Amino acid sequence: MELFFSPLGCSMASRIALYEAGASATFTEVDPVTKLTAGGTVYRDIYPLGLVPALRTEQGDLLTENAAILQYLAERFPEAGLAPRDALGTARLQQWLCFVGTELHKTVFSPLLDRAAPEGARAYALEKATARLDLLERHLAGREFLLDAFSVADAYLFTVLGWSVVTPIELGKWPALAAYHERLSRRPSVARARAEEGKLYAEERARHRAA
Amino acid sequence: MELFFSPLGCSMASRIALYEAGASATFTEVDPVTKLTAGGTVYRDIYPLGLVPALRTEQGDLLTENAAILQYLAERFPEAGLAPRDALGTARLQQWLCFVGTELHKTVFSPLLDRAAPEGARAYALEKATARLDLLERHLAGREFLLDAFSVADAYLFTVLGWSVVTPIELGKWPALAAYHERLSRRPSVARARAEEGKLYAEERARHRAA
Repeated sequence: MELFFSPLGCSMASRIALYEAGASATFTEVDPVTKLTAGGTVYRDIYPLGLVPALRTEQGDLLTENAAILQYLAERFPEAGLAPRDALGTARLQQWLCFVGTELHKTVFSPLLDRAAPEGARAYALEKATARLDLLERHLAGREFLLDAFSVADAYLFTVLGWSVVTPIELGKWPALAAYHERLSRRPSVARARAEEGKLYAEERARHRAA
Repeated sequence: MELFFSPLGCSMASRIALYEAGASATFTEVDPVTKLTAGGTVYRDIYPLGLVPALRTEQGDLLTENAAILQYLAERFPEAGLAPRDALGTARLQQWLCFVGTELHKTVFSPLLDRAAPEGARAYALEKATARLDLLERHLAGREFLLDAFSVADAYLFTVLGWSVVTPIELGKWPALAAYHERLSRRPSVARARAEEGKLYAEERARHRAA
């Protein structure tokens, strides 16, 4: 398996899932600005939108879209218990993956993280943030995870919440959410993924400054 | 089962899925402006974000998020064949549901459909449209559906593409996509859902004009 990722991008959720499963994979870094892989391949030739993650399976199929890859990994390594097995649990997992993907990642964070986004797009995104973080705050009060146990939805939510430090969103205003993020950051798979990708992110920034 | 919907909203995909399955359900209309149900209930008391669809199952659970509800319906009515059963097929279904939800619905269409969105947000959305519609155009050239057979992902994509008529996006620039939309509009479940919701949409507009 080969995971195309960018450091601290939403692809980090798939790295966390792979570490949870103890699965081996090749991690191929994609520069989010040049859209070149670490080996110099034009990533848009692999996935035309240029977005990460993408996962090349052992059978050679290329899967894209974070929620699909995360569920594929949960299914591929069932012993890691990264997804519920019952019908309602599966629906709830899909609900949270979809919520994090559509309401948080794309609606709130994508425009805030894009330096090229016009001011109106950033203001619009920020205006949407409160109701969405409030909903998570109410859900996570008194809970350890989004579902009854750690799942790939937590890997995704952790990754997205981590972006708040480079946006005007102050996570501390949502105490249950901030505590959830802090708690997850100490989980071994998460701590390892974050440390490794944090280092790669610093190297990426240094490369861009030097360029 | 009770489906909370707004006419021609993304919830129409769930109506199409229910018609495909020949399943009976109560359809509860939510006014997208007042956020009141047709019976006068405050919809935010049911789902705080006020977004449709939401599905109340026969067991009384409330499910939200379009991709989750669509997959729940496909699972609940397997004889309708609305989702592949194999692992790669499932991953591909999730990939397309996620793509339509994050890249088309939330990134491109939500800001374009929201009259309250600032101009910068609309320009930003429009700028993202071409690459995403190009990707679909290449995928659908020579194909009847997103996957090998009609699935809930087609119900979702059909619904989202239908919104282009009230945006600056001219679907005719993408011939395979326009032909796909036209072809699907003649499918009985789709034609029925669209006719019924089109009528309800006209009534909603008339109510708003009168208010």
